[in-house]
Amino acid sequence: RFASTQKPSTPATGPPDHRKLGVQQGLFTTSPYSPGSPIFLPGGARIFNRLVDFLRKQYVRYGFQEVITPTIYKKALWAKSGHLENYGDDMYSVTGYTKKHETCSHGQEGEDDGEYGLKPMNCPGHCIIFASQHHSYRDLPVRYADFSPLHRNENSGSLSGLTRVRRFHQDDGHIFCRPIQVEEEIRKTLDFVKVVYTALRLGVEYRLALSTRPKDHFIGAVEEWDRAEDALRRALNKSGMPWSVNEGDGAFYGPKIDIVLKDSDGKEHQTATVQLDFQLPKRFELEYQAPAPEHEARGEVTDHVEKLAVYGPVRPVMVHRAVLGSVERLMAILIESYNGKWPFWLNPKQAIILTVTTSPAVLEWARQAKDVLVGNDGATYQALEAGKLPSEQHPLRPTGLAVDVDDTARPLGTKIREAKSAGYGLVLVVGEKDVQDKIVSLGKERLSAEALRDRMINMVETFQ
Amino acid sequence: RFASTQKPSTPATGPPDHRKLGVQQGLFTTSPYSPGSPIFLPGGARIFNRLVDFLRKQYVRYGFQEVITPTIYKKALWAKSGHLENYGDDMYSVTGYTKKHETCSHGQEGEDDGEYGLKPMNCPGHCIIFASQHHSYRDLPVRYADFSPLHRNENSGSLSGLTRVRRFHQDDGHIFCRPIQVEEEIRKTLDFVKVVYTALRLGVEYRLALSTRPKDHFIGAVEEWDRAEDALRRALNKSGMPWSVNEGDGAFYGPKIDIVLKDSDGKEHQTATVQLDFQLPKRFELEYQAPAPEHEARGEVTDHVEKLAVYGPVRPVMVHRAVLGSVERLMAILIESYNGKWPFWLNPKQAIILTVTTSPAVLEWARQAKDVLVGNDGATYQALEAGKLPSEQHPLRPTGLAVDVDDTARPLGTKIREAKSAGYGLVLVVGEKDVQDKIVSLGKERLSAEALRDRMINMVETFQ
Ligand SMILES: [Zn+2]
Ligand SMILES: [Zn+2]
Repeated sequence: RFASTQKPSTPATGPPDHRKLGVQQGLFTTSPYSPGSPIFLPGGARIFNRLVDFLRKQYVRYGFQEVITPTIYKKALWAKSGHLENYGDDMYSVTGYTKKHETCSHGQEGEDDGEYGLKPMNCPGHCIIFASQHHSYRDLPVRYADFSPLHRNENSGSLSGLTRVRRFHQDDGHIFCRPIQVEEEIRKTLDFVKVVYTALRLGVEYRLALSTRPKDHFIGAVEEWDRAEDALRRALNKSGMPWSVNEGDGAFYGPKIDIVLKDSDGKEHQTATVQLDFQLPKRFELEYQAPAPEHEARGEVTDHVEKLAVYGPVRPVMVHRAVLGSVERLMAILIESYNGKWPFWLNPKQAIILTVTTSPAVLEWARQAKDVLVGNDGATYQALEAGKLPSEQHPLRPTGLAVDVDDTARPLGTKIREAKSAGYGLVLVVGEKDVQDKIVSLGKERLSAEALRDRMINMVETFQ
Repeated sequence: RFASTQKPSTPATGPPDHRKLGVQQGLFTTSPYSPGSPIFLPGGARIFNRLVDFLRKQYVRYGFQEVITPTIYKKALWAKSGHLENYGDDMYSVTGYTKKHETCSHGQEGEDDGEYGLKPMNCPGHCIIFASQHHSYRDLPVRYADFSPLHRNENSGSLSGLTRVRRFHQDDGHIFCRPIQVEEEIRKTLDFVKVVYTALRLGVEYRLALSTRPKDHFIGAVEEWDRAEDALRRALNKSGMPWSVNEGDGAFYGPKIDIVLKDSDGKEHQTATVQLDFQLPKRFELEYQAPAPEHEARGEVTDHVEKLAVYGPVRPVMVHRAVLGSVERLMAILIESYNGKWPFWLNPKQAIILTVTTSPAVLEWARQAKDVLVGNDGATYQALEAGKLPSEQHPLRPTGLAVDVDDTARPLGTKIREAKSAGYGLVLVVGEKDVQDKIVSLGKERLSAEALRDRMINMVETFQ
């Protein structure tokens, strides 16, 4: 009796650790057969998919088009992109266990000895797509998004949880735009970051850092850098966020903006990046057609009629950008920031229905209530299983809500305690008297399954 | 004049070719830098994602839990699973370009010389997950689903479009169940196939084929095979579909059911498979705890009290199953079967709004109507961009509908013709007189944007 009236005291622990919480909540695991490649268990996969789905939905507003690109590319591509030279030490090489016939009828470049690189980044793939099509200045900006798995060969000694990995995913995107569009694209990207971090409740706890032209080693003209850095500064000023400059800290191929997130312990994490790139468009010979190409390339507007009558090729500016950054690392930050208490919309355990008794009527009503909450329409499925399409009156409308049922023959109090400590967002109860009225209890409220479903959907749609 | 009154006669063509249609519709492309790895362009990626999302939604009813598993595993895993021995010729080997430190503090198995295999299948990964947890007979069946990219080293000479590839995705799934559950699991899988093929309008045009124990080379006991084949036969009979037997055609490790689809030319394609596997559970030493384990292993029920009091380990039955099969190959079949005319719910070009004029009011109303159709709520986004979560009254509700606008200054007739030939599902028109009434025209109908949006969502939810 004594034990049951007192909660066990929380053992003395340090700050939240995503590795510990991840195991406790069954979100992910690792295997010595693939060190550094986290395995997402159903709960973790659900959060991962929710994040990807959430980003994907915002792409409609921010004008990104998703593409699905190869995992391996021939060595010749990585030579062309410069990755082999600058990044080769961190890449994996891919070859057939047995040698296969490797020529093709076109005899095109890239048909080498059958050695591939496992991609560490999506950029060259997106350059290939851009280069495969003809572009007018009217079509720009073109924005590609990609959620491909990426691999980087880190030392096995440094591997840990979701933060030090060999395989990860980015909410990756590349913008190909006119020089004159840089500022607007950066501004929109910073807005996008704000939307995502607000929805994730990481809203105010980040700062922006501009890294500018390195002193000695850089490509391109100084004026090109100055124009780009000015555009970034203007976009930063319009963002309304605090920002600072890391003088000379840019990559040799372009300036960038880092988004630095502060976690609950005050530790800083670099998550999102907006990186301008003057190099890859050159290496891949990317271009678009525009009037007055010389002015166009400098981001200038002219009303000189003769010049405007002449069209020519112009090199687009390429922007690499990720909002979440590594989805895996962002999940680690979220796990620690929420300390295991997921907001409803991301919670892999959104609701559980507990039965007060185990009478057939109660069990059946619990099952039916769950079907309403998840949108499992039995009649529509029976029609489909018989080969008939759903009618307009009975569409198939899965809600995407994660709902479990505990109909074990145990005391309700035990079941409630267990459900709460397991982290369920809503603990719902059905008993004998609810069967007739088709009612589900949520605390002191008594609701129809449909009203509950609509409320839960609203919680998802408002990021509760 | 003569030319414009007469449609150009259709050139003599053969049956629909997904490669030709795929290029025409901008669905996918290929690159010599990664032969056999199709690159999905935005339209193709949208169809791909729609198919995956559709499958994912059905997993709620059919009890699958999605997991996300590594792309590369150490050679030791492929030796354990038997893939290296039986499948090694078709696999890719992965190693670091430079040698990295490869020991780990645990010194566990699998820590070899840092050579990996690029996965051709998901099965071993799912066995690792099953083996990492303790299972009671009460927890079974456990069903894992996975949409990972897979790689198989095919000869480059045979590569073509979406059907002969080196990289593809399956709607892969593995069921770990009790011997007594085999029949029910197969029956449910066949129901699932029916639902998916009905929604895809491939409904009646498939047959089922049971492949039974090979004459000589097989593992396991004959009785085990007989029991499994009987369960498959019973499930096939209950399916209501025609089925036939390929005597002795099973793999050495278990019987299977193939789903064979007939296309519009009468050509047959093997798409879905349901494969029983007696081997992998042994190789990975998979087990669950059950009462009366000897009876349990034979799929028998006992009411012998003393026997039921004794718990012990039992080997689960493993079922490999894919409903679409290769998503890429199924897309090829769909492209050819629809002959480029996508049903609305899968169409990457669901609707286009054409402006009659280019007055500012008409352009603005076209933009607003599009925002309603796609669910781009400006006020809610402005709040999020300012760091505020949406209110209950103004949730963020992107519809997922694909809507374009053509506001060019060209004659309406031209724009309509172009939209129709581009394959848009709905061609919508807005003109001066619609601005005041907030009306969109669809043929002879005049609708509010909200009514149109709800109709379009209903079309998606009924697989129109
Ligand atoms: Zn990039
Ligand atoms: Zn398998």
